[in-house]
Amino acid sequence: MLIGKVVGSVVATRKDEALTSHKLLLVQVHDQLGAARDQYVVAVDSVGAGHEDMILYATGSSARQTSLTKDKPCDAVIMAVIDSWDLGGENVYEKWNEG
Amino acid sequence: MLIGKVVGSVVATRKDEALTSHKLLLVQVHDQLGAARDQYVVAVDSVGAGHEDMILYATGSSARQTSLTKDKPCDAVIMAVIDSWDLGGENVYEKWNEG
Amino acid sequence: MLIGKVVGSVVATRKDEALTSHKLLLVQVHDQLGAARDQYVVAVDSVGAGHEDMILYATGSSARQTSLTKDKPCDAVIMAVIDSWDLGGENVYEKWNEG
Amino acid sequence: MLIGKVVGSVVATRKDEALTSHKLLLVQVHDQLGAARDQYVVAVDSVGAGHEDMILYATGSSARQTSLTKDKPCDAVIMAVIDSWDLGGENVYEKWNEG
Amino acid sequence: MLIGKVVGSVVATRKDEALTSHKLLLVQVHDQLGAARDQYVVAVDSVGAGHEDMILYATGSSARQTSLTKDKPCDAVIMAVIDSWDLGGENVYEKWNEG
Repeated sequence: MLIGKVVGSVVATRKDEALTSHKLLLVQVHDQLGAARDQYVVAVDSVGAGHEDMILYATGSSARQTSLTKDKPCDAVIMAVIDSWDLGGENVYEKWNEG
Repeated sequence: MLIGKVVGSVVATRKDEALTSHKLLLVQVHDQLGAARDQYVVAVDSVGAGHEDMILYATGSSARQTSLTKDKPCDAVIMAVIDSWDLGGENVYEKWNEG
Repeated sequence: MLIGKVVGSVVATRKDEALTSHKLLLVQVHDQLGAARDQYVVAVDSVGAGHEDMILYATGSSARQTSLTKDKPCDAVIMAVIDSWDLGGENVYEKWNEG
Repeated sequence: MLIGKVVGSVVATRKDEALTSHKLLLVQVHDQLGAARDQYVVAVDSVGAGHEDMILYATGSSARQTSLTKDKPCDAVIMAVIDSWDLGGENVYEKWNEG
Repeated sequence: MLIGKVVGSVVATRKDEALTSHKLLLVQVHDQLGAARDQYVVAVDSVGAGHEDMILYATGSSARQTSLTKDKPCDAVIMAVIDSWDLGGENVYEKWNEG
C-alpha cells in the first residue's frame, strides 16, 4: 500500500455498469515523510474517506478484495483512513493535529 | 485507474482469437492537472469512447473484469468516459466546455 | 498493452517444463510515435510473430490468457501483430510500407 | 521480492474490516548493497518483524498468499526476516553484526 | 520476463512457513545488450540456477505458476537458465563462451 491524500473526485456517467454507484476519488501519492509526490491515482473509496484525508490505497487484484469492488474493473481502492504514522520513532503525521 | 485521452487506434488482423472483434485504442496518459504525460497504453474500449475523449482505464487483472474482456489476454481496459474532475475544489476538466 | 518490435530471441534448454516448447522472443518496447524505447521484455509468442514485426504484448496475469500460456510461469505474451496505427488522425505505422 | 527495512508503522482505525487486527508497517526499500532507496511501501507483517529489521516483502496478488492476508485488500506483505545476504561472494549484511 | 544474473543469495530462517525450504537468490537485472542494470530482485529458484548464471525470471502472479511456488507468497521466480540470446541477428550472449 502507499500513502495518499484525497484531493479531488472524478465524475463519469458513462462507465462500466458494475461501477455505477461508486465514488471515484483523485488521490495524490505522498512519501513516507508526508510530502506530496508528482504521482496520482483515481481510486474507488471503500471506507468513506473525506476531502484532504490521508489514506492508504491498494492496487492491482488486491483492489478487488473489498465487498464494494469484488469482480469489478477497478485497480485501486482506498482501504484505510490514516490516523497517524511514525518513522524512526518520530511522529510524522497525526490526523487530529491538522488544520 | 489513471486518466487518459483517446488519441488513436491500432489495427491488427493477426491477433489472439479471443480479441478478434475488439477495438484497440491508443491512449495518452494525462496527469491530475490535465496535462499530457509522455506515457501511453493500448487499451480495449468497453464503453464506446470516442476520439479525444478523456477516459479512465484500469490495468492488470482488473482489465479483465468487464463482459468484453473476461478471460482474454488484455491488460488495459477503458472502463469510463470522464465528464469532469476537480482538484482542491477547482474544476480541472469539464467535457462540455471542450472545443 | 504496449507496442514493441521483435528484435531477437532467447534460447534456454533448462526451463520450467511447462514452457518446454515455447518460443521466447526479445521485444524492444516502442513509444506511440514508433520510436524505440530503452526498455525490453522477453515474451512468449502466441501469434507467430516474425523478426522485426511490430507487435502488441500483454503482461501480468493477462499474459496467461492464451491457450499457449495458460497456467504457465509466463508474465509477457505477444498477442497481436500490428498492421498499422494512427495518432491524432495521422498514420504512424503501416506494415506494408516497411522495407 | 525486494529488500526493505522496517522504519515505522501506520495507525488506521477506519479501515476495511478484513484488516481490523493487522499491523501495518512502514518499510524503506533497500538496494542489493544494503543502501536505502528513496522508495517505501506500507506492508502487512506476517512474520513478526521488529523495528529496524531487514526484511523481504512480496507485492501484488502474491501478498495475499499468507494465512493472514488471504482474500484481503492488501498488496504488500512482509514474508521473511533476513538473517544475511551475500553478493558476488561477499557478505553484505549479517543480522547479528548490527548495532 | 526479464534477463538477470544470479549474483548472490539471501538467508532467512524466520519466513512464511510455505517458503521454508526455498532457495532465495539475489538477481541483478540485465538489459537486452547484456549490461547490468541498477535494479535487482530476490527470486525463488525453480530450475537449479547456479552462481553467475544468466537467467529469466517471471514476476507477479505468474511467479506462482511453478510446482515449487504455487499458492505461496512469492512474486518472482527464476523459470529458465539462458543458453544464449541474439539481438538484430547478432549473438549477444553464449553461455559456453563465458569464463
